[in-house]
Amino acid sequence: MAEDSDKPKQASLVLIGMGPNMLTSMTEEAIVAAKSADFRYYEAYTAMWPIEELERLESRVGPIKKVMRPEVEQPEEILNLAKENTVAVLVVGDPLQATTHVDLQLQAEENGIDCRIIHGISITNIVTGAIGLSNYKFGRQTTLTYPYSNWIATSPLEILAMNRIMGHHTLALLDLDPTGAGTGKQQPMRPKDAVISIGLMIEKLSSGIEDINDNDSLSKLKKQAINELVATKFADWNVVLCSDMGAEDQSIIYTNLADLADFPGGNMNCLVFPASTSDVEEKALLRWSREEG
Amino acid sequence: MAEDSDKPKQASLVLIGMGPNMLTSMTEEAIVAAKSADFRYYEAYTAMWPIEELERLESRVGPIKKVMRPEVEQPEEILNLAKENTVAVLVVGDPLQATTHVDLQLQAEENGIDCRIIHGISITNIVTGAIGLSNYKFGRQTTLTYPYSNWIATSPLEILAMNRIMGHHTLALLDLDPTGAGTGKQQPMRPKDAVISIGLMIEKLSSGIEDINDNDSLSKLKKQAINELVATKFADWNVVLCSDMGAEDQSIIYTNLADLADFPGGNMNCLVFPASTSDVEEKALLRWSREEG
Repeated sequence: MAEDSDKPKQASLVLIGMGPNMLTSMTEEAIVAAKSADFRYYEAYTAMWPIEELERLESRVGPIKKVMRPEVEQPEEILNLAKENTVAVLVVGDPLQATTHVDLQLQAEENGIDCRIIHGISITNIVTGAIGLSNYKFGRQTTLTYPYSNWIATSPLEILAMNRIMGHHTLALLDLDPTGAGTGKQQPMRPKDAVISIGLMIEKLSSGIEDINDNDSLSKLKKQAINELVATKFADWNVVLCSDMGAEDQSIIYTNLADLADFPGGNMNCLVFPASTSDVEEKALLRWSREEG
Repeated sequence: MAEDSDKPKQASLVLIGMGPNMLTSMTEEAIVAAKSADFRYYEAYTAMWPIEELERLESRVGPIKKVMRPEVEQPEEILNLAKENTVAVLVVGDPLQATTHVDLQLQAEENGIDCRIIHGISITNIVTGAIGLSNYKFGRQTTLTYPYSNWIATSPLEILAMNRIMGHHTLALLDLDPTGAGTGKQQPMRPKDAVISIGLMIEKLSSGIEDINDNDSLSKLKKQAINELVATKFADWNVVLCSDMGAEDQSIIYTNLADLADFPGGNMNCLVFPASTSDVEEKALLRWSREEG
């Protein structure tokens, strides 16, 4: 990647937020910084951009090298380069939403490398308002994962159960790595994958419910929340399927778990489970009602 | 505001996210849309930009009229204009974070007005990562308010107490309207105002704690959470003061409530109350340690 020889050389690492999925959703500051970097990396395992938009970005700012989890978690190459050059690491969404990137920032600082952050629009930021639910009524967010070799994490459902009993909405991001290793081909979860994972979680949670201790108020509430959740009719859970949010062809569908698997979804999907809704929220949600796929 | 006569006329309302506090943090899409609108409004009561940046924006996209709460909540003028013109309403942060703007969008749609959304970076989006705490470990967010004529809302402290007992971090935005009416001069809360409000909340909650019913698991946990919170030494609470996040001169200070009032803060401030932290989180937080103002 060519260097602008008029520019005074200032070695640094720049973590750049790319926003959710297109060039025009990047900030001016982000585009300028990406363009002026000597080397550009694109971190492609926590989230992905559509290929056409990536090409559009490259034609605007210069070539970008795609890296996966190992290059970011063992960042010797990146950090060594950043001692002598301006190195941009482009991250989908905001560059500090994932612990990995905070860790990269800390490692740069420990190595005496100047590290600059340029924020971007994150999916967790826009999805709440875009569907019309109040941001402040969301509880803790979670990520639904694929089952890895017959094992499934149940914590996402525990978070959902606790949010539900407290009347908070839940944003559930969807995994995009069926192997869990972060090295191979990304495969963003489709709605039907999410339904399968949720089914497995319910099964596992239901069978282990008696083992949850209830020695204190928090455990008691948690046990009750899980009991109530697994007692509901799974198929009837209301859910909002959000696909390719922020893109021209974003899609929002308000449905239930029984029908969710019939919708194909988009490139990147996430789910919102609404709890109790206000009048404005209810009216806002009904705009997205769909009975079937 | 002049109209570009070459452009085919398409009446619509466009809600545009301005991002936290500067022109270069707006997306390209947002700047283009603001520039091509026939009329531009700036909603100035839920959050504010520094005046220099507003002027910079005006010189780039054209003149912008400042409006307050009544013009947005009773939006006849805006909606009438949008029946014949492209009307941009510029909102600090993301345009759909506040219920008011979702409601404006719904009203436009009910009036048959095409309503387009252009997202922006929101403070709630960047603050978590910028200080180095994991986004997914945050519980429900809250807003600390001024006392209005001797009355103080205690719900922010109840949210903090519940997050704390569950091990979740809490983001607390700060009020900017001492009157609560949304019409007058905005005065973003300073750290010392927040300390006063928190003190009043603790006082009110402590005196009413016996009246909280504990008939069910949720109420029991809530009562315990509040009891534990008010029993702690107020002065020792760890807190992160985040000022003018996203701006060149953003400041992050990790301190405790005893010292918080001594820090002046910036134009716009918010607070984060960390719960239990991971190793990376702890290391990240310690970068911002400051003993006194």
